[in-house]
Amino acid sequence: MSENISREFDSQTHQFNATNAAKALDRLVDSDAGLFFENLFKLTNDNLIDVLLELSNKSFRVALNRLSPQRVHNAMIGTPSDVMTDFLQRLERLDKTNSKQLRALMSEKEKSEFLELSQYDASQAGAYMQTEMLSATLDNTMQDVKNSVLAFRKEEPYSFIVKLFVTDEERIFLAALNFSDLILYEPQQTMREIVRELKPHHPLSVRPTTRVEEVIRLFDEFDLSVLAVVDEDGVLKGCVLYDDIYELIQKFNTDQVYKLAGLDDEAEDESFSSAQRMRLVWLLINLGSVFAASFVIDSFKETIASYIALAVLLPLVSALGGNAGMQAMTVTLRRLTLGEIDFSQSWPVLKKESAIVLVNGLVIALSVAAVSYLWFEDETLALIIGIAMFVNLFVTGGLGALIPLALKKVGVDPAIASSIILTTTSDVFGFFIFLYLAREFLS
Amino acid sequence: MSENISREFDSQTHQFNATNAAKALDRLVDSDAGLFFENLFKLTNDNLIDVLLELSNKSFRVALNRLSPQRVHNAMIGTPSDVMTDFLQRLERLDKTNSKQLRALMSEKEKSEFLELSQYDASQAGAYMQTEMLSATLDNTMQDVKNSVLAFRKEEPYSFIVKLFVTDEERIFLAALNFSDLILYEPQQTMREIVRELKPHHPLSVRPTTRVEEVIRLFDEFDLSVLAVVDEDGVLKGCVLYDDIYELIQKFNTDQVYKLAGLDDEAEDESFSSAQRMRLVWLLINLGSVFAASFVIDSFKETIASYIALAVLLPLVSALGGNAGMQAMTVTLRRLTLGEIDFSQSWPVLKKESAIVLVNGLVIALSVAAVSYLWFEDETLALIIGIAMFVNLFVTGGLGALIPLALKKVGVDPAIASSIILTTTSDVFGFFIFLYLAREFLS
Repeated sequence: MSENISREFDSQTHQFNATNAAKALDRLVDSDAGLFFENLFKLTNDNLIDVLLELSNKSFRVALNRLSPQRVHNAMIGTPSDVMTDFLQRLERLDKTNSKQLRALMSEKEKSEFLELSQYDASQAGAYMQTEMLSATLDNTMQDVKNSVLAFRKEEPYSFIVKLFVTDEERIFLAALNFSDLILYEPQQTMREIVRELKPHHPLSVRPTTRVEEVIRLFDEFDLSVLAVVDEDGVLKGCVLYDDIYELIQKFNTDQVYKLAGLDDEAEDESFSSAQRMRLVWLLINLGSVFAASFVIDSFKETIASYIALAVLLPLVSALGGNAGMQAMTVTLRRLTLGEIDFSQSWPVLKKESAIVLVNGLVIALSVAAVSYLWFEDETLALIIGIAMFVNLFVTGGLGALIPLALKKVGVDPAIASSIILTTTSDVFGFFIFLYLAREFLS
Repeated sequence: MSENISREFDSQTHQFNATNAAKALDRLVDSDAGLFFENLFKLTNDNLIDVLLELSNKSFRVALNRLSPQRVHNAMIGTPSDVMTDFLQRLERLDKTNSKQLRALMSEKEKSEFLELSQYDASQAGAYMQTEMLSATLDNTMQDVKNSVLAFRKEEPYSFIVKLFVTDEERIFLAALNFSDLILYEPQQTMREIVRELKPHHPLSVRPTTRVEEVIRLFDEFDLSVLAVVDEDGVLKGCVLYDDIYELIQKFNTDQVYKLAGLDDEAEDESFSSAQRMRLVWLLINLGSVFAASFVIDSFKETIASYIALAVLLPLVSALGGNAGMQAMTVTLRRLTLGEIDFSQSWPVLKKESAIVLVNGLVIALSVAAVSYLWFEDETLALIIGIAMFVNLFVTGGLGALIPLALKKVGVDPAIASSIILTTTSDVFGFFIFLYLAREFLS
C-alpha cells in the first residue's frame, strides 16, 4: 500500500483535495497506524486544519493525540476564521485536554475572535461568517486597495477575493464592489469617487443572528456570491461566501430527509450511541401509533374471526393509504421547504392533491376490488374493500397535503411530525372504515 | 388590490426579485386578468424572461398569448445564453405557435447558439453553461481587458464577472484569473506576462457532456465560484457559475426525495395528468408488493382463525420492521448520494447499522412482548411476537443498509427501487416468521 496522502492532489487540477485525504486517512487509522501518522505528519500547514476537520471522530482523536499543540497552532494561522472556529469547537467537544493546551498558545486576538464567532449556533449566519475579507473606507484610494491585495496575497497566494467591501469611517457597510470594475480606475482615485460613479445597488446584508434558511434564500434568489454580515448599527463584521452555501444547502437537505425517517443529522454524526438513542425514540413513538391501529382491529375481532379474509386484506388498507398520503405529503413538504408555497395557498394545494388521489384512489380501489372478487368470490367483500380503499386513499391524500401546511402554520417542524401523524391516521381510519363496513354488511 | 409587480423590488436591496414577481402574477392570473396583464406589460426587458421562466405553466401560456414576439425577442437580448435556452425550450414545450413566430425573429447566431445549447439534457453540464463570459488571449494587454469590461458593462451594468478566462490563439483554455490580482498590473502588460508572474493553478474544467453530479462535486470539493466548459480539444466553450450550483443542488435533492416516495420531479412540474400518472404507477407497484404480503397471511388463515390476536398484532410486525429498515436505508442512501461511502465500504456500514438495530430491535421486541402479555395474558404469544419482532427488525435494518449499496453497485438508481424492495421484504418476511412461529408453537 503506497498511499501518499500528503500528495492527495486532484489529478485534473493539481489542487489538494482535503476530503479525499481525510477519507484515505480514515481507512488507514485501523489498518496501518504507522502509515497513518507518516501521512499525517507530511501534511502542510495550509492543509492540516482542513483535513482534520474532515476526519472521522475516531481518526480526529488519534491524530490530535500525536500532533503537538505548536504544530496545530502554526497551521491555524492563515485558516479562515469560520473554519478555525469549527475546528476549535470540534476539538473542545472531542478532546478537552488538547483544547486547553491549544488555547494557552492562542493570542488574545485569536481568543476573542473565537469567542465572538463561537457564540452563534449552527442555525445562525454568524456560524458561517468569516472575518477575513478585503475592505476599504471611502477615503481610501485605489493605491491603498492595491496594497491591501498585495498584503493579502502574501498570506494567501491563491484564495479568491470575491468583492471589495466599502465602509465609511465608522466601518458602516456601504457597498460591495466588483474588482472587474475596479481595474478601470487610476491609483489616486478614492473609493468615494468610484462609488459615486459606479452607483452600486444598495447592498444586501444580514445580522450574525439571521437564520440560515434566510441566508440560503437570499443567495438563491439574488444569485449572490458573497453576503455581508453587519451588526445592529450596520457595522461590517464579516461575510458569508458562496462555498459555505453549497454546504449549507446540502446540510439543510440532509436534515429534512433525516427528520422524515426519524433520524437526527447531528446525532448520526456524533457517535454510535447518540444515533442509536435518537432512532429508538422514533421507533417507540411509532410503536405507540401502531398499537392504536391494533386496538381498532381488536375491537372488531369477532367480525374478523367469522371472515378471515378480512385479516388477509388488512395490509392493503394501511399500506396503500400510507403510500398515497406520503406522495401528497412529500410534494407539499418539499414545496414548503423550498418556500414555493405557504399556508395561504392551502386551498389550491389541497384541490390539486385531492384531485390526484380522487383519480388514483378510484383506479386502486377498482383493482383491489377486482382481485379480491377473483380471490374470495364474494361480491359484498369486494365492494367493501373497494369502498374502504377509495375513502382511505382520498382522505389520506388530502391529509398528506394539509398536515405539513398546518404544522408549519402553528410553528411545529413539519418534517419531524408529518409522517407519524399521517401513518397513524391512515392506519386507524383505514382499518376502522374497512372493518366497520364489514361488520355492518357482511352477514 | 394594489399589487404593483413591476416594482417587485426587495425592500432590503432594491433589487428586482423575479421569484416574488412571478408568484404575485400566478396569484393574479385567475383572480384579476386585467391586473395580470397590466403588471406583465410593465416588466422591463431586463426582467421579463426571468419572470416568465418562474411563472406556472398556466400563467406562462396566458402571458405568451398576449406578449408580441417582438417584445419577447427584445427582452432576449442581454439574457444569459443558458437562461435563454431554458426559456426557448419551455416555450417550445408549452406553445408551439408562439415558439415558431419567435424563432422567425431570431438571428442566425442566436439560432445556432440555441441549437448548440439545447442538445444537452438536464443531467449534463452543457445545459447549465452560459457562453457569455470575459476572456482574453495571451497576447491581449490589460488595456484590452479594460476595454472588454467597458463593453460588457454597457450591456450589463451590474452583473458579476467572476474571473477572466485566458486562452491561447486557438482558444485553448489556459487559466482563470482573479480581477483582484489584475488590478495590480499596468495597461501595457500582456496576459502572457501576467500568467507567468501569477503562476495560477492548472485550472479545472469539464466537458459539456459531463454529468451534473460531477459538476456539483467539483464545485463543492474545490469551493469553486466558476468552472470552465471546454470541448474535447480543450477549446473554451462557456462556463458554469456558482448560482447555477445553488439551484442544481436543490433540484438534485428534490429529485432524490421525490424518488423515495415514488414521485417524478419533472412530471410534478409538468401537468396534473403526468403527475397523476407517475404517482399511479408507483401505487400499482406497491399494490403488487402488498398483495404478496396478503398471500403470506392467506396461507396461515387457519392459524389466525384459531388465534384472532394474531390479526391484531400483524400491523406491529410490518410497521416496525419497515420503520427500522427505513432509518438504516435513509442514512445509507444519503451517504451514497453525498459520495461519503460506496460499495467497498459495505462491511463497516453494515456492521454499524446492524449493531444499531440489534440494540433497538431488542428494546422494541421486549416492549411489544410485554404489552402483548398484559393485553392477551398468553406468555407463548408474547414470546412469539417478541422473537418475530426482533428477527424482523434485525433483518430489515441490515437490508436497509445493504439494498441501496447493492443497487448502486449494479447500476440501478437506489433512490427509486430501495424503499419498495425494503417494504416488500419486511412485510413478507415479517408476516411469515411471525405466523410460522405461531402455527408451530401456539396450540
